[in-house]
Amino acid sequence: MPDLPEQNAPQGKSRPLAVVLASGGLDSAVCLAEALREFEVALLHINYGQRTEARELRAFEDLADHYGITRRLVADISYLKEIGGSSLVDKNLPMETGLPAEQGPVPSTYVPFRNAHILCVGVSWAEVNGAEALFIGVVQEDGSGYPDCREDFYLKFGAAVDAGTKAETRINIRTPLIGLDKEAIVRRAVDLEVPLDLTWSCYTDSERACGECESCRLRLRGFERAGRSDPIPYRRS
Amino acid sequence: MPDLPEQNAPQGKSRPLAVVLASGGLDSAVCLAEALREFEVALLHINYGQRTEARELRAFEDLADHYGITRRLVADISYLKEIGGSSLVDKNLPMETGLPAEQGPVPSTYVPFRNAHILCVGVSWAEVNGAEALFIGVVQEDGSGYPDCREDFYLKFGAAVDAGTKAETRINIRTPLIGLDKEAIVRRAVDLEVPLDLTWSCYTDSERACGECESCRLRLRGFERAGRSDPIPYRRS
Repeated sequence: MPDLPEQNAPQGKSRPLAVVLASGGLDSAVCLAEALREFEVALLHINYGQRTEARELRAFEDLADHYGITRRLVADISYLKEIGGSSLVDKNLPMETGLPAEQGPVPSTYVPFRNAHILCVGVSWAEVNGAEALFIGVVQEDGSGYPDCREDFYLKFGAAVDAGTKAETRINIRTPLIGLDKEAIVRRAVDLEVPLDLTWSCYTDSERACGECESCRLRLRGFERAGRSDPIPYRRS
Repeated sequence: MPDLPEQNAPQGKSRPLAVVLASGGLDSAVCLAEALREFEVALLHINYGQRTEARELRAFEDLADHYGITRRLVADISYLKEIGGSSLVDKNLPMETGLPAEQGPVPSTYVPFRNAHILCVGVSWAEVNGAEALFIGVVQEDGSGYPDCREDFYLKFGAAVDAGTKAETRINIRTPLIGLDKEAIVRRAVDLEVPLDLTWSCYTDSERACGECESCRLRLRGFERAGRSDPIPYRRS
């Protein structure tokens, strides 16, 4: 990474650095707010050829602007699109609507081993910059049966990181949301004053959220249960 | 992956599928030959912005043609170039010459956590295609102190793969060369009739191998100790 000016650190204090993965969705925005409580942050966005990439990238930049984060990296792993196997990157595959419980154990939106790719980018960027932590806003409970959202995977992956990086590298993989449900995440977002209007979670649309895809349904249910209204525009609202 | 005709399988027999990672170098060519003894092969090449990528890709295609392998994928992870931190992808960083023992524990050519990225691509492609194994031609002894060439890393990474993929996915990470030195690899190449003239290992040049970079020196020493001559052209020969 090129040298960039110091940013988002309290005046006169040097805080340790963390890389935070941010899609621009609700979960990653809360994860970012959690990281900022302890760390100076370098923000990393992954483009993997997902349908709503342009909208997600805007949310990422808006969140970074909001928090004054200047160290940003957008990495393109859209070779995942060529590998295929997921309705999230292949428009020829149908996408389920509704909530995870109505589906089989692994939905069509599962991108094979996607989160491992994303973590790898974060680990490399963290190692080059001497970051001590890597934050990812994954959620096991609402994870729709995605195998790469299970806590066990992050523990095992962390062991692989320790084995596969330099001896002096210590990158703590942090998953502060993994045990939360969407209601708790919305409440946490409100507590931490996360700018929810800047976030984007919909899998299928980029102007007004569809309100019907798995991601929208989980998000809306979270807001409803937390007794809050979602500030982003919906097609059916 | 699009449907492709059956290939490199013995007539009338269906063999299990393996994904084989192939840079086009000596080690990966021998690894491919080992995989072909047991498996039908899908061949995967990774472009990560390395200096000699065009020459490596030609070696990859030549090897695939030689073995009649039609299932091929070239994945671009050149975001590693933006992350930087390695002389292998950053021309502004000096590259060591000579053999590893003359250097510090981790040389400048180390690309942070590179092999994990490469493995991830292989795992995703393997999972989509139902492959049972993923071969990578890493070598620990000649690995120049690269932390992601240690056997322990592959064991830990394999555990993360099991945890992070679908329950029905079983991808065996295979590192058939990990315990060999270059002399043994050259001998194995000769035994398996690997087309050594098609391989390319040099880090710095694409026409005639330089003979001086770490990779050339290891290769040349391997041929010398095995009592063989290297069929590729060298600048100083």
